[in-house]
Amino acid sequence: MIHNLTLDDVETLAHQTLVAAGATQEAARAVARSTRLAERDGIRSHGLLYIPIYAEHLICAKVSKTAKPVVSRPRPGAVRVDADHGFAHTAIDAGWGQFCQAARENGVAAMSIHNSYNCGVLGHHAERLASDGMVGLCFTHAPASIAPPGGKQPVVGTNPFSIAVPDGNGGAMLVIDQSASAIAKSEILLRSREGKAIEPGWALDADGNETLDADAALAGSMLPSGGYKGFGVGLLVEILAAALSGANLSTEASPFAGPKGGPPGTGQFFIAIDPAGFGGEGFHAAMLRLATSITDQDGARLPGQRRADNRKRIEAEGVQVDDALLARIKAAGAPTT
Amino acid sequence: MIHNLTLDDVETLAHQTLVAAGATQEAARAVARSTRLAERDGIRSHGLLYIPIYAEHLICAKVSKTAKPVVSRPRPGAVRVDADHGFAHTAIDAGWGQFCQAARENGVAAMSIHNSYNCGVLGHHAERLASDGMVGLCFTHAPASIAPPGGKQPVVGTNPFSIAVPDGNGGAMLVIDQSASAIAKSEILLRSREGKAIEPGWALDADGNETLDADAALAGSMLPSGGYKGFGVGLLVEILAAALSGANLSTEASPFAGPKGGPPGTGQFFIAIDPAGFGGEGFHAAMLRLATSITDQDGARLPGQRRADNRKRIEAEGVQVDDALLARIKAAGAPTT
Repeated sequence: MIHNLTLDDVETLAHQTLVAAGATQEAARAVARSTRLAERDGIRSHGLLYIPIYAEHLICAKVSKTAKPVVSRPRPGAVRVDADHGFAHTAIDAGWGQFCQAARENGVAAMSIHNSYNCGVLGHHAERLASDGMVGLCFTHAPASIAPPGGKQPVVGTNPFSIAVPDGNGGAMLVIDQSASAIAKSEILLRSREGKAIEPGWALDADGNETLDADAALAGSMLPSGGYKGFGVGLLVEILAAALSGANLSTEASPFAGPKGGPPGTGQFFIAIDPAGFGGEGFHAAMLRLATSITDQDGARLPGQRRADNRKRIEAEGVQVDDALLARIKAAGAPTT
Repeated sequence: MIHNLTLDDVETLAHQTLVAAGATQEAARAVARSTRLAERDGIRSHGLLYIPIYAEHLICAKVSKTAKPVVSRPRPGAVRVDADHGFAHTAIDAGWGQFCQAARENGVAAMSIHNSYNCGVLGHHAERLASDGMVGLCFTHAPASIAPPGGKQPVVGTNPFSIAVPDGNGGAMLVIDQSASAIAKSEILLRSREGKAIEPGWALDADGNETLDADAALAGSMLPSGGYKGFGVGLLVEILAAALSGANLSTEASPFAGPKGGPPGTGQFFIAIDPAGFGGEGFHAAMLRLATSITDQDGARLPGQRRADNRKRIEAEGVQVDDALLARIKAAGAPTT
């Protein structure tokens, strides 16, 4: 049976489940909000589907229930957050005020987060900066899944970057949010479950040879989007979100799925730029010309447009959730231990 | 006949030619230095080959001979340079001191340059920051050549980004410097001159259909590396280097080749991050582990390694220049007007 949930239902369900699994009210609130935003934009992989994983990770202590993020500001434009192995969202919230203030005062500021975890949909953090009138440039990394060109051992994760630009009206006019891999790992997992072949250009087997076998791909590495240039983007993200933030490298992080390996200890690196420090007024006009040069073309669309379309539809129509997922969420919120 | 030039010879020849074409001593010095570095790293497209173009652009006023860059610092971490339609190098040099100081004081700083021009090898600017102990993250754009996915009108240029990481010893341990296109435009020009077909995945014709005809490609658009994700990287660069800096958009800029269209008025956006504001000491150790995870794999190498290899070889052996290029440079330095 399929249930139709409002976004409020989604947020409440997520919140209750996380609290039942041991999250503090504050952590549950931040992660439930993130779950709502993911479902609202049709990004189901980061929506309710992830709630049982979050709950499992609270219970197995991959995510600390008692984490207290520590915020420092070593320089006027540099905010550092030790997430203390709690949810990334709580750590990001803890540093957010100082981060935005630093960007306004200095024209540009950066916030790094270490001892962290999966931060959900990266683009939502960039968009949050854009809603506050700033250009948001965000980086986060993940356990290693992509090998360097010529090699076969994964070195970087799917390592997305995101940039969001303010629309001058409390929102974002454009959000780019893209990973370094040719395809999402979830797609390869799906093909594996269905016993189907994967597509050329998606993955290598453990010997570093291209494969169409989903299981061989999962034992091997994912191919970057656009060959060595895609790996270069993944490495850019690794340098900032992992190495510079003081997090574990992607090769050193435990998986974002399953109970094994202790806290992943990954990181994020966010840059906020106040347009008033640079092109100022002209920036908005230039962005409108740039956006129009794309949207005026039949068949072309702005990055983030699919999410924006989903948002309109899902805010009106709600979210479809099947019995099986609801049962898994219910079970996750009622641990037997 | 092939001549063997030392790097000092290269720099002197570039300097004399630019001065003869009307450049100030200061501008000639900056551009000649950039030419030396390009030849030293084996990046011939940005070396002596470009000197006749620079000279032509001085003479036709695409580059102003009398430009006086104006540096402002609207915020403690924000440096803005109006290049006044002179060489980008001079404008970058004009802001450099304040930019580096701002990064040290604030942990992170950004410098935008507008009314600017081609800045040569982008990676050399990132590397200059790394030599000063900072992570350099640089963006520059170029006249539009890449259409958005689904469209056929070029919107962004080959728009490279570069990141360089300090080696703790006055140099860079790693430099990523990559454009957003599947292939360099110079390669398509070469195929056109040779009457050869181009490769699949390189370009579209003016109707937006993929083409193997070099001339049709030059009349159409270049394909991004990695499909829509490559376009996303080009758009990231466009937002920062063009729109935010207050430069012309790539669609609005005159060509970087030929005498027509007046000054291109393009832009750059550079971010400098002082590791001391973030992971600090741990950063260098993490970068060593990251680099080793790549170099330990047979067949894999660090980005920038080819340039580093060229550098060693060319510093020892010099630069091979043929009669035809020397004659073009000599002619460029002795304008008939």
